[in-house]
Amino acid sequence: MIITVIGLGLIGGSIALDLRANGHLVIGVDDNPSHLDQALDLKLVDTTEILESALSKSDVIILAIPIDGIKEILPHILDKIPYNTTVIDVGSTKESICSIIQSHPKRGRFVAAHPLAGTEYSGPKAALKNLFKGKSNIICEEDRSDESSLETAIDIFNHLGMTTMFMNPKDHDKHMAYVSHLSHISSFMLGQTVLEIEKDEKQIFNLASTGFESTVRLAKSSADTWVPIFKNNKQNISDALEQYIEFLSKFKEAVDKGDSVEMHKMITKANNIRRILLGMKLNVMKLS
Amino acid sequence: MIITVIGLGLIGGSIALDLRANGHLVIGVDDNPSHLDQALDLKLVDTTEILESALSKSDVIILAIPIDGIKEILPHILDKIPYNTTVIDVGSTKESICSIIQSHPKRGRFVAAHPLAGTEYSGPKAALKNLFKGKSNIICEEDRSDESSLETAIDIFNHLGMTTMFMNPKDHDKHMAYVSHLSHISSFMLGQTVLEIEKDEKQIFNLASTGFESTVRLAKSSADTWVPIFKNNKQNISDALEQYIEFLSKFKEAVDKGDSVEMHKMITKANNIRRILLGMKLNVMKLS
Repeated sequence: MIITVIGLGLIGGSIALDLRANGHLVIGVDDNPSHLDQALDLKLVDTTEILESALSKSDVIILAIPIDGIKEILPHILDKIPYNTTVIDVGSTKESICSIIQSHPKRGRFVAAHPLAGTEYSGPKAALKNLFKGKSNIICEEDRSDESSLETAIDIFNHLGMTTMFMNPKDHDKHMAYVSHLSHISSFMLGQTVLEIEKDEKQIFNLASTGFESTVRLAKSSADTWVPIFKNNKQNISDALEQYIEFLSKFKEAVDKGDSVEMHKMITKANNIRRILLGMKLNVMKLS
Repeated sequence: MIITVIGLGLIGGSIALDLRANGHLVIGVDDNPSHLDQALDLKLVDTTEILESALSKSDVIILAIPIDGIKEILPHILDKIPYNTTVIDVGSTKESICSIIQSHPKRGRFVAAHPLAGTEYSGPKAALKNLFKGKSNIICEEDRSDESSLETAIDIFNHLGMTTMFMNPKDHDKHMAYVSHLSHISSFMLGQTVLEIEKDEKQIFNLASTGFESTVRLAKSSADTWVPIFKNNKQNISDALEQYIEFLSKFKEAVDKGDSVEMHKMITKANNIRRILLGMKLNVMKLS
């Protein structure tokens, strides 16, 4: 198939890389000329083109740009594609994207997806082979996609080594606020707190250990990717943050009072996450 | 040398393992009989003994139990040791430990240390070879230790592959609140928040990705280890939590207002952590 990937950063670049390895012809489109050069140098894509010319010749269009960009160009892409082209977006929130094209006459050619994979890096150089292998993919509003476009999309995610599940956009966005977006905010603010206090960076180099590194790793993530995600999942993220701040305040109260029993209780509750993390590991083993 | 390790969990067990590999004779002491059995089975120690008999024959005593336990038995151990024995503690907070024995007639035989290494697991089975290799060790109040005991302690940390730095206990505890203790609380409360909302654990298994795993990894850590740390570093941790909660609330406000500019600014500030993490990596490369 001829597949156009719009946005050649971490996610789009990694998708392009794996689909090329699967024998597809991949056309790259990106606003940023240096991204196009890098994508060609790194052999992420077969060729690069401007959007208009890529649209007319592709079997599949994959949108891998920040959410706001997806919302802006998706309706125009649907306007312009030939009737048998499939358009897939891989954005991290789904409700606002699905709602914006819900009455589009070519809604059926669109598949709203979210492959659950990534790293804290961005840009074409961050693209990785097999980034998606053994991971989960979510498709939302599958009943609003034509059978043929849904099938095409699932095939593509299968080629990436993913298992696809269906979920409605509302549930998707709520779950993501807790299992992904909150982790990022927690890490961004942890990074900021440490930088605020530890003016002497040399001390952090010397004193921080692997535990610190693991909790602030996500604080390296790109603002351009994440601000639109937070904007488009506002209410869920606000709720998640409220709950998180409430628990932190309760824990602070226990620290202030020297209340060992309460601290012990809260930590032991949190320890139940062991079961979840073990479950994740078993799930990955099962999938791969 | 004959070295007694008191407390055969993750830290004590890993120290014992490496010191045995360095040719020392290691005696294990632990309140928990099953820990003693496991330590022997796993060959962490050469032999196990009760505290009283171990004290009289050891050149070095290493205390690797929770902070409250260290504070309780350290004065008695100093009372009982022969005059040329060195006692080292490896607890994660230093101010309250140093203060408790500051006027002890054998203060000079004691070295207050904190090897900066660990994992989220606990108990003898969590012990790892080379856990400390290439990492930093802090010694506090080095001028209050006899030259010979300080030299012995530094030799031991050298055997573990560590680089030792000196720092006063007050600064140590403050830095640790930010680069270690806060990370743990952030992770514990993140775990609790997700568990509170996501009653259906199967969904977390399916939806959580590596970013989530990395931020909640520390939430698996043991309450028995961490509650005493939080109690003994109360004021610093309270300050760190206050600052962290303030930043989170400010970020929540930006989310609620849909204020992209403010979110972008805060994330970009947090991104400076990239430099710190790179510095840590270079430091480790330099050390190992």
